[in-house]
Amino acid sequence: MAIDQDRLWRRIETLSRITDPERPWTRRSFTPRFLEGRAWLAAEFRAAGLETEIDAAGNLIGRLAGADPALKPILIGSHSDTVPSGGRYDGILGVLAALEVAQDLVERGERPRHPLEVVDFLAEEPSEFGLSCIGSRALAGTLNAEHLALTRPDGMTLREGIAYVGGHPDELASVKRPADGIAAYVEVHIEQGRVLENERIPIGIVTDIAGIHRERITVTGRADHAGATPMPLRADALVGAAKLIQAAYERALASARGNQPLVATFGHIEVSPNAANAVPGEAVLTLEVRSGDEAATAAFGAALARDLRPALEALRLTIAVAPISHVAPTACAPLVRQTIARAAASLGLATRDLPSGAGHDGVQVARTGPVGMIFVPCLDGRSHAPEESITPEQAGDGARVLAETVRLLDAG
Amino acid sequence: MAIDQDRLWRRIETLSRITDPERPWTRRSFTPRFLEGRAWLAAEFRAAGLETEIDAAGNLIGRLAGADPALKPILIGSHSDTVPSGGRYDGILGVLAALEVAQDLVERGERPRHPLEVVDFLAEEPSEFGLSCIGSRALAGTLNAEHLALTRPDGMTLREGIAYVGGHPDELASVKRPADGIAAYVEVHIEQGRVLENERIPIGIVTDIAGIHRERITVTGRADHAGATPMPLRADALVGAAKLIQAAYERALASARGNQPLVATFGHIEVSPNAANAVPGEAVLTLEVRSGDEAATAAFGAALARDLRPALEALRLTIAVAPISHVAPTACAPLVRQTIARAAASLGLATRDLPSGAGHDGVQVARTGPVGMIFVPCLDGRSHAPEESITPEQAGDGARVLAETVRLLDAG
Repeated sequence: MAIDQDRLWRRIETLSRITDPERPWTRRSFTPRFLEGRAWLAAEFRAAGLETEIDAAGNLIGRLAGADPALKPILIGSHSDTVPSGGRYDGILGVLAALEVAQDLVERGERPRHPLEVVDFLAEEPSEFGLSCIGSRALAGTLNAEHLALTRPDGMTLREGIAYVGGHPDELASVKRPADGIAAYVEVHIEQGRVLENERIPIGIVTDIAGIHRERITVTGRADHAGATPMPLRADALVGAAKLIQAAYERALASARGNQPLVATFGHIEVSPNAANAVPGEAVLTLEVRSGDEAATAAFGAALARDLRPALEALRLTIAVAPISHVAPTACAPLVRQTIARAAASLGLATRDLPSGAGHDGVQVARTGPVGMIFVPCLDGRSHAPEESITPEQAGDGARVLAETVRLLDAG
Repeated sequence: MAIDQDRLWRRIETLSRITDPERPWTRRSFTPRFLEGRAWLAAEFRAAGLETEIDAAGNLIGRLAGADPALKPILIGSHSDTVPSGGRYDGILGVLAALEVAQDLVERGERPRHPLEVVDFLAEEPSEFGLSCIGSRALAGTLNAEHLALTRPDGMTLREGIAYVGGHPDELASVKRPADGIAAYVEVHIEQGRVLENERIPIGIVTDIAGIHRERITVTGRADHAGATPMPLRADALVGAAKLIQAAYERALASARGNQPLVATFGHIEVSPNAANAVPGEAVLTLEVRSGDEAATAAFGAALARDLRPALEALRLTIAVAPISHVAPTACAPLVRQTIARAAASLGLATRDLPSGAGHDGVQVARTGPVGMIFVPCLDGRSHAPEESITPEQAGDGARVLAETVRLLDAG
C-alpha cells in the first residue's frame, strides 16, 4: 500500500477549483458546474483503471473487479457536490481518497477478493429539490415517486434532474442493493467540528451518525406598548424564550459529561412584533436535538417544555411544542469500526471514537450492509464555509487508513 | 360646567369612522383621509363657536377669546392622526374632549379669563417622514430645516407635506411660542396600559412623560455546524442574549418596587445565521429603557453589559453596546398635576399618579410652559391596535376632569 499523497492533494485542488467563480467553493448538484466536475472525475476514474459509469440514479461509480465474483462488493467514496459557498474538502476528500485507494491497488496489480466500487453519490447536500442524499437513497431503495416529483424553483422535477446528470429515473430498481447487498461501505470525511483538532488526534472513528429531532416551540405572551406597560403587567414571550434557551443549553452541556452526549440548539427564532417599542407577544423557536440516543433526542424538547412550564406560566406565558422532523440515529457497524481502529493502529495513528453530528450518505447505505466513517480534523472546525481547511497530511492520513481498512475488510 | 357626554361620544364615533376602509382605524397624517377628518373637525370647531384656523405649521386651532387679553393662553387638545391600523381613541379623545370643554363654555356664555385654544396638533404619531410630534415641535420652535427636508417614500418633503395640510412652512416662526408663552397645556389621553384598569381608578395624573433611551447590543460568538459542534466547544450568541434578556427583565422588575420605576424591553432581536442547523454566531438586540429618571435610562444598558460581561466571556462571547437614541424625560408641572388632582377630587373621581411610558406632544409643549396630562383607562391596556376600547363614561370622566381643571387654572 502506497498512497500517493501528492497526487491526492493535486486532485483535491483541481476538483475544488471547478467552482462557480463568483462564489467559491460552489458546485451545486444538477448544474452545469456539477457536470463539469463529474466529467473530470469520470476521466480520472477511467485513467486510474476503473470501469466507470453513471448508474440509473445518477451516481458516478468506478469499479474494480474482485478475484471472487461471489463476494459482495466493498463500497468506498463520498460526494462531489457542495453547499452554496461551501468548502473544498467536504465530500471531495472522501471521493478522491477512495479513488486513490483503488488506483493504488490497480497500480500495484493487487486484485482484491471483493469487487471494489468507488462511488460519488449524487447530491448528498440538500439540493434545490429540498432533498439530500439522493443517490444513496436510490441505492437503499428509499427514493420514491414522491421524491421524483419534487420540483426545484425553475420548475425542473427531480426525475428530470436525475436524467440531466446522466441517470435513468425509470430504471431506479437496477440501482437498489438488497438489505445485505454489500460487504461494507467506508467513507473518509472531514470532522466538521473541533474535537479531533482540540485533542490533536489525527483519526476519528465514527460511532454513529446522529439522529436529528426538530421541534417548533412557540411561546405566547401578549404584545403590549413597551412604554405604557409596567414590568409586573407584562407577558413577554422573549423573556420566556430566554429561559428555554438557557435551560436547553445547560441541560445539553451537562449531557456532554455523560456516556451518550447530545447537542441541543435553538438556531432559529422569530419574534413578533419584533419592534423596539413593543413587548414581544410571541416567540417561535426551532429546537434541534442530535444524539446517537434516539429516545434522548425525542424526549428532550418535551421534558424541557414540561419542566419550564410552571416558570413560564408565572410569567403569564403559554408554551406549545410541535414536531417538525425526526431522523433516527444510524449506528456504524462494529465490524467496520474495529477494522478502522486496527488499520489506524497498524499505521501508528491515534484514534478517537466520536459521533457524527452531521448527516451523511451512510445513513442510507446502512440499509444495505455495514457502514463506517473515518474522520480527519479540519481547521478550527469550520465547514460548509469557504474557510474550510485541511492539510495534505491530514488528507493522506485519511486515505491511508481507508486503504488499510479496505485491505483488512477484503482479507477478512 | 355640564359636559355633554353623549355629544362627545357621538363625535368620537363619527371622527373614528373617517378611516381607510380596508384597515380600520387608520387616518394617517398627510393623506386625503387625514384632510377629510380635519375638514369635519374644523366644521365642528366653528359650529361650537371657536375661531378656527390651520396655523403655519399645519396645526388645527380653535380659539375662544379670554376676558383678559393680557393673560397667556391655556391650551387643551391632542391629535387626530393615527398609526396604521390604530385605535379609535388615541388622540381623538383628547381633541374632542377639549372641543367639548370649549363648547360648554360658549354655550353657557361663560367667558374664561385666559384665551383658550383647542389644538389638534399635526402628526403626533410617527409619520411617513420618520418624525413624530411635528406640529408641537413647531410650537416649541424645534422644527428645523433638516426636519423640513425629510422625504417620505413617494418623494414628498415635509415642507411640502405641511403645505399640503394647509400650513405655511415659510412662516413657522409665527407659530413658535416663547419659553414662557402659555399658561398651561392639558391633554386627556387613554392610558395605553393597564395600571388604571387593574386598580379600578378612573383618572390617572401623569407625573412625567418617560425619557426613552435606546441602545443596540450585539452579542458575538461563532456560527458553527449545530450537529458537529459539541456543547462545550460552542460560542452561542443566542445563549448569551438569553442571559441579557433575563437579567434586564429581572432588574427592571425589581425597579417596579422602587420610587422611580423604569421599564426595559428587548423588543427586537436579529440572530444570524438564524438557521435550525447552525449555532447562532451573532445576536443583535435593541434595548429600550424608559423612565422619568433620565440618568437611570442612560445607565441601564451599560450596567447590564458590564455586569454580564464576565458570564458572557465564560461562554466565549463578546458584547458591544452602541447608542441609538436618547430622549430626556419631561416632568409634568406641579401646578397642573395639583390642579388635575383638585378637579378630580371635586368631581368625586379617584386618581392615581403614574408616568406616561409613551411619548406625547407635551414633551415639546413643555418648552413653552407648564404641561399636564389626564389619563383614562382603556380596555385591557390595548392601544395602537384596532382593539383599542374605552366606554362613554370613561371618555366623559376625562372631559369632565379637563373642564374642571381648565376652570381652576383659569381662575387661579
